Order: sequence, then structure tokens, then C-alpha cells
Amino acid sequence: MTMKAFQDYYADNFAHCYGCGRLNEHGLQIKSYWDGEESVCHFKPKPYHTGGFPGNVYGGIIASLIDCHGAGTASAAIHRYLGKELGAREPIRFVTASLHVDYLSPTPIDASLELRGRVKEIKGRKVIVAITLAARESVCATGEVVMVQLPDHFSSRNR
Amino acid sequence: MTMKAFQDYYADNFAHCYGCGRLNEHGLQIKSYWDGEESVCHFKPKPYHTGGFPGNVYGGIIASLIDCHGAGTASAAIHRYLGKELGAREPIRFVTASLHVDYLSPTPIDASLELRGRVKEIKGRKVIVAITLAARESVCATGEVVMVQLPDHFSSRNR
Repeated sequence: MTMKAFQDYYADNFAHCYGCGRLNEHGLQIKSYWDGEESVCHFKPKPYHTGGFPGNVYGGIIASLIDCHGAGTASAAIHRYLGKELGAREPIRFVTASLHVDYLSPTPIDASLELRGRVKEIKGRKVIVAITLAARESVCATGEVVMVQLPDHFSSRNR
Repeated sequence: MTMKAFQDYYADNFAHCYGCGRLNEHGLQIKSYWDGEESVCHFKPKPYHTGGFPGNVYGGIIASLIDCHGAGTASAAIHRYLGKELGAREPIRFVTASLHVDYLSPTPIDASLELRGRVKEIKGRKVIVAITLAARESVCATGEVVMVQLPDHFSSRNR
């Protein structure tokens, strides 16, 4: 049995996101999963995801990974908070209200990147997720996203 | 005569950035220019730069545009601050220390996007740039980047 990623539960017509849409053939197609209380995502950059300095990952790709892993984590977390895991109903979806990234050290492009998310706050329709991005077990960037839950009809298959 | 963009002054071996490298055929290849005291960049998203919600631009692309327009603006601004425009010497390059984006409203994917940068602070090796991103004359996102100047040998052709 293969475990389904958070993003695999998104309805088809909302699965074209450049960062995490499984149906966007040009996109990053990230996959996020629970690992206990944390969410985890592994991503192998392409050679053309380079930043201005050879050998390092572009900061905009790092921001993108943090954005989409944060959105997926918010969705999975609200389901868990409500007592139902993803898949038990039409997934509750979020939009990013704000994104913050601190770049701590260059991120090597030839490494597998590991993102780990932790829910800092759930309040009303808002979920705040703190994220670390590591390569070779060294944290290269940290991020925080503020996600806001959309009304149900925005993420329904029948919209 | 065609005006050269900030990014056109970057040395070839530092011109592969996914966001602004003129030599990255897979990348966004953004171009930034002065418009008086502000820097400006126009970008036409591709259809596959969609976010999770059809018709809108992906937040990670918006973060990428803000990151690279901010880096280019920091470079151009430090040259101007030192009394020499870009092109008068090997360009001084920057890396992103932090990136913050506030997403104010959905950004239509079928519009030309206009980013405008304004230098908030130049202090030592640090330049802070505030950026707005607008579509059809309506600001959809605002951002702020903290850029740190690299030592000269990092951006030299002879490195």
C-alpha cells in the first residue's frame, strides 16, 4: 500500500498548482505527509532550479516549497483538528495570506531537501505553520506561512 | 537603442538563476529597470504558473518575482549610491537574507504583472527593498526583501 500525500486528496480542478498540483506537468509536484506531529516533504531540485550562484538552490524555489508544504500542512492539520483525517470529506483548502522566509545558508542543489512543518496556531479560519528546510541534515532556511481557510464551495468538485 | 536591464549586467557564470538568469532557458528571465527612483519589472505569467485556484497566479511565482526584482534593485541601488550606474564596473551582487510577502488579493494569470521596487534602507552591506506587485493597476501583493552584498570575488568573471 502506498501512502497518499496531502496533495493527492485535492480535487482534480484544484490540482494544477505550479508548486503542488499533481496535474501540472511543468510544476514542482511536491508531496507532503504526516510524520507524527510534524509534516514532512522531500524534494529533489532539478539542475535548472539554480539560484544566481552556481551549485545552490534558487530562493524562489525554496519559498515555493515552503508555501505549498505550508498550505498542505494547514489543510491536513485542520482535518485532524476537526477529528477527521484527509480523505474523510472534501478537503478543506487554504490560501496564503503571508509568507516569510529566512535564508540561513546556501542550499546545495545536488541534495535531497527535507521540509518539516509544525502547526504554530489554529485560530478561526487561520492556520500558522512554521517550516524548516534542510539539506544533508543541516537547516538552510526557515519559514512561516499564514494560511486562511477558504469557504467550502471554493474547493468543491462541483464548483 | 534598447535599454539594458539590471540583469543584463550580471556576469555569464552568474546568469543562470531560475528567476532572473538570462541564460536559464527554463526560468522566468525577469528584467528590471529604473523608472526614476523606483525600479520596475513587467512579467507575463505562463498558463502553467497557476496557483491551486484556476485563473490566479501561484504565490510561489509571486515570491520569486519579488525575490529577483529585489536582488536586481539592490544591485542597481548600491551602484547608484556609490555614484556609478550598473555597467561602470563588475556588478555588485546580493543574496537574499529574508523575504516577506503579503498576498492581498488573487492575482489574475491572464494579466501583465507590474512590480515596483523602492529602496527602504542602505546600511553597510545590507539593502532593504519594498516591492508592490500589481495587475491591471490594482496591487495584489506587497513584499519586502533584505539583501546582503556579497564580497566582490563572488561575482567576478574570474572566480
